[in-house]
Amino acid sequence: MIHLPDFFEFLSIPSISSEPAFKEEVRRCALYVQKRLGNLGLHTELWETEGHPIVFAASEHDPKKPTLLIYNHYDVQPVDPLELWETPPFNPTVRDGQVYARGAQDNKGQCFYVMEALRHIVERDGKLPFNLKLCIEGEEECGSQSLHKILDRKKKELKADVLAIVDLGIPHLNAPTITLGTRGIITMDVEVTNANKDLHSGSHGGLAYNPIHALVKILSEARDENGKITIPGFYDNVETFSEQERKPMRFIFDEEQYFKDFGIKATGGEIAFPPIERNWLRPTLEINGITGGYAGDGFKTVIPSKASAKVSCRLVPHQDPQQVAHLVKEYFESKAPPGTVVNVHLHGEGGEAARASLQSKGVQAFANAFSEVFNQPCQFIFEGASIPIVPKLAAASGAEPVLLGLGLMTDCIHSPNEHFGIDRLEKGAQIMVKAIDSLIIDS
Amino acid sequence: MIHLPDFFEFLSIPSISSEPAFKEEVRRCALYVQKRLGNLGLHTELWETEGHPIVFAASEHDPKKPTLLIYNHYDVQPVDPLELWETPPFNPTVRDGQVYARGAQDNKGQCFYVMEALRHIVERDGKLPFNLKLCIEGEEECGSQSLHKILDRKKKELKADVLAIVDLGIPHLNAPTITLGTRGIITMDVEVTNANKDLHSGSHGGLAYNPIHALVKILSEARDENGKITIPGFYDNVETFSEQERKPMRFIFDEEQYFKDFGIKATGGEIAFPPIERNWLRPTLEINGITGGYAGDGFKTVIPSKASAKVSCRLVPHQDPQQVAHLVKEYFESKAPPGTVVNVHLHGEGGEAARASLQSKGVQAFANAFSEVFNQPCQFIFEGASIPIVPKLAAASGAEPVLLGLGLMTDCIHSPNEHFGIDRLEKGAQIMVKAIDSLIIDS
Repeated sequence: MIHLPDFFEFLSIPSISSEPAFKEEVRRCALYVQKRLGNLGLHTELWETEGHPIVFAASEHDPKKPTLLIYNHYDVQPVDPLELWETPPFNPTVRDGQVYARGAQDNKGQCFYVMEALRHIVERDGKLPFNLKLCIEGEEECGSQSLHKILDRKKKELKADVLAIVDLGIPHLNAPTITLGTRGIITMDVEVTNANKDLHSGSHGGLAYNPIHALVKILSEARDENGKITIPGFYDNVETFSEQERKPMRFIFDEEQYFKDFGIKATGGEIAFPPIERNWLRPTLEINGITGGYAGDGFKTVIPSKASAKVSCRLVPHQDPQQVAHLVKEYFESKAPPGTVVNVHLHGEGGEAARASLQSKGVQAFANAFSEVFNQPCQFIFEGASIPIVPKLAAASGAEPVLLGLGLMTDCIHSPNEHFGIDRLEKGAQIMVKAIDSLIIDS
Repeated sequence: MIHLPDFFEFLSIPSISSEPAFKEEVRRCALYVQKRLGNLGLHTELWETEGHPIVFAASEHDPKKPTLLIYNHYDVQPVDPLELWETPPFNPTVRDGQVYARGAQDNKGQCFYVMEALRHIVERDGKLPFNLKLCIEGEEECGSQSLHKILDRKKKELKADVLAIVDLGIPHLNAPTITLGTRGIITMDVEVTNANKDLHSGSHGGLAYNPIHALVKILSEARDENGKITIPGFYDNVETFSEQERKPMRFIFDEEQYFKDFGIKATGGEIAFPPIERNWLRPTLEINGITGGYAGDGFKTVIPSKASAKVSCRLVPHQDPQQVAHLVKEYFESKAPPGTVVNVHLHGEGGEAARASLQSKGVQAFANAFSEVFNQPCQFIFEGASIPIVPKLAAASGAEPVLLGLGLMTDCIHSPNEHFGIDRLEKGAQIMVKAIDSLIIDS
């Protein structure tokens, strides 16, 4: 069902949304997606924004049938460290049945099998069914701000009954799975400054306070020795689960295999919880980047004038992103050692956690499709990552969300050598066809 | 006395010793210095090493007269962040009587006025005096390893009575000063690793321990809330001074002006000591660089596989660099959170602190020269920075050291917009002439 040359063309466009230098490439990728959807007979629109464009497509409407809105994104993460890629990130290469490229899984691969499923239906039925909508954005990897801003104006276009978020994964190759929730996220820059210029650490060391020392101190103190976040109020409103509710979440996580796959010897998060629950059900505070002073070859005896870090928090249901973001900002700024200045710059609005109902029409239809394609019962998990647009898109469209996808933890998304299996491209297309048949055509 | 075009030629050679890409430029700079000294009538040698060459020069020898050995270095620090330079670092520019360029002060400026003093003596006397030696190395900014290694073989050439280290400074423009000591130094890389690749902080956050968290924790815990270093044994053998001994060290440090000049609001080091003593007389542990994860534009939700820092310690007399280096290495490696790996890579042998005697012939001669040129009594200070080769060169040459120079704290050495005053080039040359007259010609 899958036509690989088309996939390679899609992957070869470096649509890195967070780096301004790639702006034109991101647009080129949007136009590529729009053209493919137009060729399938869909009415298409390119929604222009202050950031990157959004591709919207819809088949004809029949008010008597339910509407399925499918969400994907065509943008990708940056590629550094480039030297660790075995083949160039935008030169797709097949090795052992896997396609290697930035975006091979996240999310071009999962977007591509949706489009291939539609192509299959057109070839089978001569046309696409009624009430099919697609919303494919270009800023998922940098916060989905443009889609968020446009939602209020596009409620009519987006109106649907089921919202399929096709950007998730399965725990292993033979585990059909629907995801019942994602975590929310906030991100920020934390910057510490002292002197008005870089200083020689001999002539000034001992005299001038080094902002790197302040930075490591305040970052370090934000978590205690048990991995618990020490910021007052951080855990207020955090959703907790009973033992009974936790049970089904645990059954398909193979801890031993996970740690082996990633060479992980040290677990993170709160030691009071089992490792997988720290990822599925607990909020985090993570330092995603830190920089200050000299980090090149050799050595430079410098006290920098500033040092900074990139910090994110993953959130769970009932944590308000803006409220938590301001708690964290105030905490870090209040912890500045006397005389130093700590400035926290919050990025955008962040995103809430999302939850899907096991009983919803969409979850049921996709669970059945997974069960049939894998020939075994579909299971349910949570996802530690965030798709901040999900709760917003669900609200704007009035649809119940269903979270699905065929990603594996070993796909190296956001890392060098990202890849996706050709077998999963095929399965993904089959699942989409079955779910569309069940939700719209047979309804 | 100063011929600026020659100075500009010297400054325009990018002799960055710590960056392998500049190896040929460093050699070109050595050849430039050798040629200038040869033109003055000195016998010159280029001492080849595994690293950068050393320029040695000597006038004729008279066994009845004392010998003066002058030390400078022709290598310079890296130039980043390049965007903060108002004019390019290797394109010397005069603004308000100051020459702006990398190395304008440290140490090409101070080396240049030594050479200009010799030129003046040749013009005045028709030749250079007996028993004058110069040793101008090319690795001061990266540890002086090659000069250190060659010392044993060059004892005969270097033999002298007074060793003038012309790489120091004065507290302000009207303060003739000799320096009575420098601190020692050790440097190292500290690296923390966990997973075998970079991970997505959503899919893995909470599960996989983030090595940046380990790094900020162990770095932060190496100093307590009073700025005292917590590493067991770190302060063993540290030289302390009585109240009476401290007095003369304090008198010319203008704390208020210093903090104003550098926009410093927070003092570093141990709060139990007055700020200037933390720099002059106390050891430090300083984070000179830190890196991990993503630090570019935008945001990348990554848990990196490793994080690292560059750490240096400044040492005082009686602290053995290798002993302290191993204490610090063992401390950091022992503090690895369970499962993570901390590796400390020590750079070279480090260097001991140096002390000059107020009563020595060299200190007296140069103090008199300073007093005459500035027309006010010479004073005495300490220097927080390190010139690790000083104690080694003093031992190899059998000479008593004297530490001097005309640098100012505001010269921006090791920073963007390094500069040196033309007035100080003139004064420096006058001081050298007077000291040479007193030490050799009139002896």
